Order: sequence, then structure tokens, then C-alpha cells
Amino acid sequence: MAKSARLSGFPERLPAERVIEKRIIDILEHTFALHGFSALHHRAVEPISQLAKDGEIDKEIFAVSRLHSEGTERNPLGLHFDLTVPLARFVTENANELSFPFRAARIQPVWRGERPQAGRYREFIQADVDVIADAELPGHVEVEIPLIIADAFARLAPLGVPPVRIVVNDRRLLEGFARGIGLTDIPAVLRCLDKYDKIGPEEVAKLLAAEAEADERQQQLCLALAAIESDSPDFAEEVRALGVEHPLLDEGLESLTRMLTAAAERAPGVLVAQLKIARGLDYYTGAVYETQLVGHEELGSVASGGRYDSLATVGKKTYPGVGMSIGVSRLMAFVLGEDSGITASRGTPSAVVVAVTDEERRSEADTVATALRARDIPCEVSPSAAKFGRQIRYAERRGIPFVWFTDGESGHEVKDIRTGEQTPADPQTWEPSVEDRWPQVTQG
Amino acid sequence: MAKSARLSGFPERLPAERVIEKRIIDILEHTFALHGFSALHHRAVEPISQLAKDGEIDKEIFAVSRLHSEGTERNPLGLHFDLTVPLARFVTENANELSFPFRAARIQPVWRGERPQAGRYREFIQADVDVIADAELPGHVEVEIPLIIADAFARLAPLGVPPVRIVVNDRRLLEGFARGIGLTDIPAVLRCLDKYDKIGPEEVAKLLAAEAEADERQQQLCLALAAIESDSPDFAEEVRALGVEHPLLDEGLESLTRMLTAAAERAPGVLVAQLKIARGLDYYTGAVYETQLVGHEELGSVASGGRYDSLATVGKKTYPGVGMSIGVSRLMAFVLGEDSGITASRGTPSAVVVAVTDEERRSEADTVATALRARDIPCEVSPSAAKFGRQIRYAERRGIPFVWFTDGESGHEVKDIRTGEQTPADPQTWEPSVEDRWPQVTQG
Repeated sequence: MAKSARLSGFPERLPAERVIEKRIIDILEHTFALHGFSALHHRAVEPISQLAKDGEIDKEIFAVSRLHSEGTERNPLGLHFDLTVPLARFVTENANELSFPFRAARIQPVWRGERPQAGRYREFIQADVDVIADAELPGHVEVEIPLIIADAFARLAPLGVPPVRIVVNDRRLLEGFARGIGLTDIPAVLRCLDKYDKIGPEEVAKLLAAEAEADERQQQLCLALAAIESDSPDFAEEVRALGVEHPLLDEGLESLTRMLTAAAERAPGVLVAQLKIARGLDYYTGAVYETQLVGHEELGSVASGGRYDSLATVGKKTYPGVGMSIGVSRLMAFVLGEDSGITASRGTPSAVVVAVTDEERRSEADTVATALRARDIPCEVSPSAAKFGRQIRYAERRGIPFVWFTDGESGHEVKDIRTGEQTPADPQTWEPSVEDRWPQVTQG
Repeated sequence: MAKSARLSGFPERLPAERVIEKRIIDILEHTFALHGFSALHHRAVEPISQLAKDGEIDKEIFAVSRLHSEGTERNPLGLHFDLTVPLARFVTENANELSFPFRAARIQPVWRGERPQAGRYREFIQADVDVIADAELPGHVEVEIPLIIADAFARLAPLGVPPVRIVVNDRRLLEGFARGIGLTDIPAVLRCLDKYDKIGPEEVAKLLAAEAEADERQQQLCLALAAIESDSPDFAEEVRALGVEHPLLDEGLESLTRMLTAAAERAPGVLVAQLKIARGLDYYTGAVYETQLVGHEELGSVASGGRYDSLATVGKKTYPGVGMSIGVSRLMAFVLGEDSGITASRGTPSAVVVAVTDEERRSEADTVATALRARDIPCEVSPSAAKFGRQIRYAERRGIPFVWFTDGESGHEVKDIRTGEQTPADPQTWEPSVEDRWPQVTQG
């Protein structure tokens, strides 16, 4: 006996909302396929030892265990919290069956035991693309990945999804800069810089002193770096002007310059170097990316990722990768909000309700429906032989545009219930318009 | 650091396998849409109180809890073990937003803590259709649902999926018959009959005596009923010939007769009344269905379901439903087996690898790839500017049929690497054949 049991942080969509979500997923899936990414689907669980890095167990993980399992589980499991860790495990497990560099796309739910809040869920859908190499991962992949995400958002634009700004940085650049000015606790520096937007430059300076032992000059140089923001490859000159030298800084600058040069040609205005972003997850070792919906920055990042060089290792062999993840559920928080104006024309796929004259003659209606479906027209047969007025209201309530009347003697007629127009029709040839055949997702 | 961690019972597909699985899912999704079912996606978790019927907790449930959650959870959660219980909950929760009868389709994973064995998994994909009413559920829906499943399998046939036999029975028929011969412990009778195929008629007779207090005559009548099997509506006469009378028996017979009559017209030979099937899940109250792949009966049922009248209730209001669930993962066990001969032409979507002449000119290749994608041709740019021979082998290893060569001076050429034929081509107009454009799933 089902009772209402809404669970905070576990969004479920109503039919018309799911039409929109599914359309977004289909567009992303298609974009990823056009760019040559093999679609995978990961199992939901991983050994907790795999999910908890370096033995440190994260509160955000949902543990999974059999109810009434006898004794303790030998290999305790948890739900994956992203799609990168499962991919790294999948690649090492199946390395002999894959060709490298391996291009993988996945669109599926992930779970985190966080406190639910606006745009943050306990179950949410991510759409990921990753390229994983079996030895050297060429730097141009770090350029390619954000441009694929830019392409994906460009393909979502006709639905009414706003343009994006992909902000990029490079961990090598940050590390090289920090080392070049004499700082050594790199994780602490990254942690401090990552709070720039939240707490502002002055507090970051204090934090750098407290946590990374940065003196006045080091603090000021870090803040000067963090303030640099540009969509032109010329940003590198601003960095150089700070007078810091380090081989890792050169590597990062070169990679970021290449990214902005390519972006200027292939997705002008979309990529912006923002040297304050560092990203929380500490498996990143090169490029890092975040993505804002222009005009809706308060939503947070809708697509993030980076380069990870040592997430997937077997013995001495490592599989470096670069990937980005689109937060489909977070994007949906915007799409379903009042600002977006994005709607589905209906929540049911049916374009036609075939009316039933009386129950004895239901099979006539079934025959019409079968003929329509054979020509790829979605339809359903009226659930009852009620008065036609009621059958029309059945269609109306669902936003189904057409009702089909069939009568052995007088033949077939189809009514557009929006205009009331009723015309003779043949189940072997009648066609709805392209807009009416399947539910449409549009803005306004 | 990912290590290999294969988990028994949690199947994951390699790229070419996933192409097949995804094609099957797409066909099912499309079939369900053509029949007017709204696509939903349920959250993975339910309160355990919801999953465990009548407070009885089932070992098969996977419990979910936050690692290091403070104290005990107020509302312990579990992973759903089917898609019917979540739908019942969803419908009661959103009744005001839905129109009834409500037609819902879902294709997503479910989890059971069973011991993994051939065709049985701990995580597996199900594809469900259900019709749920808000008061009376008309009997013709019990006829419609298995015919939709028959249509779905007919649409899978071109891939090489064998034809199916949908065996049907009716719980009312069984209950009416049992009551008509004086038996009263109906759950016990159903449990005994359900073992018919496993233990044979003689053992069923003994079980009926032991568990349902059936005397010799009652045992023999039950076995006589259980032996009836027919794809013709005339099966009812065989039942009548046993001389048993009960109003519920009449109801069940009438419903099953109607089903076979409709099936004879719309899916001849597919539906078979088999009066021994009872189904394990005890929420069924009317029609019950199981489905065998013809010639591969040892796989077990690949699509099951039935009518449930009291799964979804809120106060005094109940929402009766009928549904069936296709076991996509079990079907995949056959599809990926040696017998099926079903293969994907490649595991990557790319139809073309655009070769790179040298790294400095990578952007020329990017431009070609962008032009091809704009005309919906999936492609990727070679990851390195290695010798052309190596770039061709990159395509070959992935089953990608074409390699594109671009040269600022001599123009573009495309090579079909299967034939070696190389011809001039224009990125604005060149088209691969329909068979080459996207991965194909075929038999043999």
C-alpha cells in the first residue's frame, strides 16, 4: 500500500517535465555521439574502498548493504557520487578490451548524502564525457573537452537554455605560480583560492597567511593572479607581468593559451580564463573547468571537470584523462523555474485519441490505432465508450491535439480539438503536422 | 586510484555491447511512446517501510544509508526492487497533477540483494508499462498490456531477438476455481501451483495436501486445471468441463477469453492461456503474465506482470493498475550469448576519423569535423599526427569505416579503409551510406 513519501533531495519529474528533461538528455547524448564518444552505463555501486580516497571516508557517500545480511559484508558497497571514479575503475578493469585513447560518454544518476538545498540534490543526473589515454594524454584533449560542452549547450539553445560561459584554469599554472613565489603547501593554496568568490580577496589573503604560511608579498601576488580574467590568449602577458618563473607555470600557461586560441575560433566568447578557480575535488592535475549560465550565475556551475593524471592506475601503469560533467538536474532547476519560460507542449506522447463508439466495437478503434502506429504516429484508444464529449475532454486534459472518430458506415473523421475542425481521414494516409506529431519543447 | 573490482551480479557493458543494449532500450522506449505512455524516471530509493510489505522485511532489499550518519536514520531508505512499487507511490503522491487512467513507461535499473546466477542480477534494467486508474480500471486494459509487449518484441525481431510466447492466466480464475472446489487458503494454493514446472504434478499434489489441506479430489481438480494450456478462447470450455462454479471463476474466464480473442486478431499465436502460472509477487489480483523467448525457455520469463488492484491506496481511495515489465538485462544475457548471433557493427559512434597532417595544422582537421557534425555525421579527429598508417589503424581497431585526409593545397580525400578506395570529397556535401553513418545492430 503506497503512501505519499516525498523525499527531500530526490527530485522526480511530472510527465511534461520529464519530456523536457528527456529532450535535454537526448540532445546531449546525440552531441556526445557526434563527437565520437562511446556511450557507457556504469553500475550504481562501487566498493567503498574505491569511493573513499586514501582510506578517508567521506560523509557524502551513501552506503549500500543487504537488509538482514548475515554478519558484516566482506566488501562494503556505496553508491557512486560521480561518473569519473566508476569510469577510471571500468577502464582499468577492461583495458584489454578497449582502444586508447578511449572516449566515453555516460548520462545517469549519481548520489551524494549532502544536505539538500536549492540546486543541490541527493540523487541527480550527470552527463559526462571523458577521454582516457593509456600512457600520454595529448594536451589538445584539454582544449577539445570544453569545446564539446560548448557545442552541447549551443545545441540546447533552441530549447531556451541560455548561453554559457566556461571558465577555465590550470592546476599546473597555479602550482607553478605558488612554487615560483616560494609557497610549498599547494593543496592549502588551492583551498584558499577556491574561496575567493565566497569570502572575497581580503579574507583569502588572511587565509593564505594562516594556512599556507604566505607572507605579505606572497599574499599580494596570489591575489593579483586570482584577479586575472580574460577571454583572450593575451591573459598570459598579465601573468608574465607578475614576474614569477617556474616550469609548471610555463606548462599551465601554454595549455591555457592554446585553449583560448582554439576557443576564439571555434566558440568565440564562450571560454574565459579565470585564474581564481581551483575546484574542490583533488584528483585534478591540469586543466579545470566550471560553467555558468550567463545571467544565472547564482545557480552555480552547470558543467565542471578537469584533467586527472593519476585517478586510474594499475600497478605502475596509469591512465590519464580529461573530462567534464554537465549537471542535468541542476540545469533542470533553472529550466523548470519561472524565469526560463521553457515548456513541453504535452506530457503524453499521444498525438491522437481514437474514440470508441461502443465497447462492442473497440476493436475497430484498435485497428485504426495500429494503422497509425505503423506509420509512426503516437496514439491511444479511448479508455471508455463514454459520450464523445467526454472522450474529447479526455484528450483535452492531456493536451492531445486530435480525436479520431471511426464508423463502419460513414468512414473515418479526425477532429482538431483546438479549432473544432473535423475532416474525413484515412488511417493509411493521414498525417499530423511535424509540430503536432510528438511533444515539442519550446520557450514561451 | 582505481583498482579492478568486478562485482558479481552487477553487469556492465563494453562499448559494442552497450550499442546493442541501447538500441533495444530505444526501440522499447519508442514502442511505449507510440502506445501513448508518458515516460517517467523514478528516484532509486524508497522508504524501506514502503518496500517491505506489511512490515515484513525482505532480504532481497538493499538498504541505503549515509556513511557516518549521526545516530539512526529517521526514515531508512532502500533501493527499489521493481518499478511498480515506485509508480504506485508516485501516483498517489501526484494524483492531483495526473489525468487518469494514467499511462506510464519507465526504463531504468532496479536492485535486488539476491544471490547472482545465470540471468539473475543484483542490478538490472527493467522496461515497464503500466496503466493506473483512479477508480474503476476497465478490463480491456488487461488485454491491451500484453499486446503492447507483443508489439515491442515484434519491433525487436529485426535485430535478431526471437519471437515470444506470452503466457497468461488470471488470479480471479484460480481463486474462483479453488473456492469453487472448497479450498480456502488461496495464497497456499497459488504458491503450490507456482511450483508446477519446477517440481511436477505429483509433488504439487502432495504440496496441496500438506499446505492447502486439499483432499484427493481437490488435488486432482487443481492438477486438471493447471494442465490446461491453449492459444484459443475455447480453453474456457475445458475449464467448464471440470464442473466447477464460482462468480470469481466466471470473471477470470471472461477476462482471459477476451484476451485470447483480441490476441488471435492482433498478435496471432503469441498469447497462450496457461492455467498453472500464478506469479510470485502477491500484489496481483487479476491477469498475470509471463513471457518466454521461443526456443530459449530456459532463460525464464523475459517480461512479466499483472493486474494489481490495491497496491496504490490513499485512505479509502485506491488506484488499480495493470502493468508488465520487460527484463532488459535478462534479454541481454541471451543477446550477448553465443546463440543469438546479434552484433553491433562498431562500439564507437564515429563513422569518420579525420586525419591530422601535423600538429600545427590540427585546426584544419577540426574544421572538417565541425562541418561533418553540422550535417549529423559522427566523427572524431585523430588523437595524434602520427604516420597516416598509424592513423588508419586507429580507425581500423575501432571499426570506423572512413578516414578523411585534408590538405590545404590538394583538397580533401576520404578513404574507405575496408576497400582501400580513396576519393576526393567535400566536407560540405560528402555522405556516408545509411549503414555506415551510425553503428548497426544486426544478426549474423
